[in-house]
Amino acid sequence: MLIKRLAIIGVGLIGGSLARALRAAGEVGEVVGCGRGKENLEQAVQLGVIDSYTHDAGEAVQGADVVFLAVPLGAMRDTFAAIKGQLGDAALVTDGGSAKGSVVNDCRAVFGRDLPGFVPGHPIAGTENSGVEASFAELYQNRRVILTPTESTSDEALQQITTMWEICGSDVTHMSVQHHDEVLAATSHLPHMLAFALVDSLARMKENDEIFRYAAGGFRDFTRIASSSPVMWRDICIANRDAISSIMKGYSRDMADLADTISRGDGEHLLEIFERARESRDRYIDGITDTPE
Amino acid sequence: MLIKRLAIIGVGLIGGSLARALRAAGEVGEVVGCGRGKENLEQAVQLGVIDSYTHDAGEAVQGADVVFLAVPLGAMRDTFAAIKGQLGDAALVTDGGSAKGSVVNDCRAVFGRDLPGFVPGHPIAGTENSGVEASFAELYQNRRVILTPTESTSDEALQQITTMWEICGSDVTHMSVQHHDEVLAATSHLPHMLAFALVDSLARMKENDEIFRYAAGGFRDFTRIASSSPVMWRDICIANRDAISSIMKGYSRDMADLADTISRGDGEHLLEIFERARESRDRYIDGITDTPE
Repeated sequence: MLIKRLAIIGVGLIGGSLARALRAAGEVGEVVGCGRGKENLEQAVQLGVIDSYTHDAGEAVQGADVVFLAVPLGAMRDTFAAIKGQLGDAALVTDGGSAKGSVVNDCRAVFGRDLPGFVPGHPIAGTENSGVEASFAELYQNRRVILTPTESTSDEALQQITTMWEICGSDVTHMSVQHHDEVLAATSHLPHMLAFALVDSLARMKENDEIFRYAAGGFRDFTRIASSSPVMWRDICIANRDAISSIMKGYSRDMADLADTISRGDGEHLLEIFERARESRDRYIDGITDTPE
Repeated sequence: MLIKRLAIIGVGLIGGSLARALRAAGEVGEVVGCGRGKENLEQAVQLGVIDSYTHDAGEAVQGADVVFLAVPLGAMRDTFAAIKGQLGDAALVTDGGSAKGSVVNDCRAVFGRDLPGFVPGHPIAGTENSGVEASFAELYQNRRVILTPTESTSDEALQQITTMWEICGSDVTHMSVQHHDEVLAATSHLPHMLAFALVDSLARMKENDEIFRYAAGGFRDFTRIASSSPVMWRDICIANRDAISSIMKGYSRDMADLADTISRGDGEHLLEIFERARESRDRYIDGITDTPE
């Protein structure tokens, strides 16, 4: 058995699904859940996702060999503060945050250093639902999980957390914190910003009723992601603000160039851009993991 | 029977589906097809979509009471030139172009005036396939069709073309040419430009292999529309260049503001934008026609 006692801080879709997957594989003994909502936690016990719960993260991690932080990015620092001094010497800590630099900074701010047992992570998986009732053991199967060890992360810790995710059926990759944040800014955060900005732009037009009535083609797909959690995206934007604002600036320049090209009616150049986009998209689409977050 | 002789200029998905729908309703006598590709036209005859064909648009419209122009926007002017002098006095002409100002201008440039029998139109329907083999009688059922009469369009012509589309099961609306082009720029053309620009931006990054490998969530949806026909979109951009470049400029400003807000880490303002976007999207999504173009 890989993990004797697992502490899940934040028992929702992400945390609950990890517990379920490890239970299904017979690789975890006891699971302790921690969260704020009593109802959700009791449901988690009833569903067999966790064995017991507490509202105190410091209490939850006592005696745990692995701690999984599945709280919003905006709650990471307080969570580190709550578990400080309560972690066992050999305890490993990992998380599921969509940005990694901010979580590493939060840990450093609280502990005064990078912990050898801390393995920052990002499972690229999700559904449109949330809460423990939405969790399921197969969520991470064939999904990519990116682990971003710091210079202080021990090889043993990295190996053990890699194994944990592989048991869940994930395809695990290691990369630097900064590289993760740049790659995700480009591939996930930027598209979400475009969708939010588009819907907001249209909503603020005078005839917005009519605009939305005639919205067609592609628009539904395009804006589906603008229904994502506003709080989660606020946290992601703040956590990864440098990479996101930098890539948005690059994109804005590309947009302005495209607007100029259209304004000039330069058909040859437009065709070149559109063909390159279609080729790239078609060439790479097979490699894209089809997940909603 | 509404139409004795229908001429379809451009026998593909759009033109073929109109012929099929009118045939299925028993509201058309003879259908003459016109196009460049002999193979596609012979297939159209075999499929029973058209009765006969010619490669000469002027010949095709002789004796037709309704002419449907389903050629690319970039071919409209030449098509008007080809049918000039061949149209019967009572013949009605309508089209399926995604931009309307350019088609009205093309007609005016060729005929020296707006024709009383010309009813510019835009059926908001399509699939990812093209060619006559992709056409089907139900394509326009429950789809919106926007007709944009000019000041010269006769009431009878408008009424007859409205009836034609209603027979196909469409929900027909009338609006001005300019208003159509602004509304479509916002709801269809802009989203396509964002998708093309996004994929092109990512493709030009150094680590584009990796970028696409980690592209997740929403990205697949978002970029599906970047696989649309480059030639068609070049034509649309040139045809509707003023409305598109104007709305892109507005959107660029909104993007720049959003980037600033992120840069400043102004969580309250971010939350406000994201919540407004989600509410608008959820509120209006039911009114959106789910079509791919």
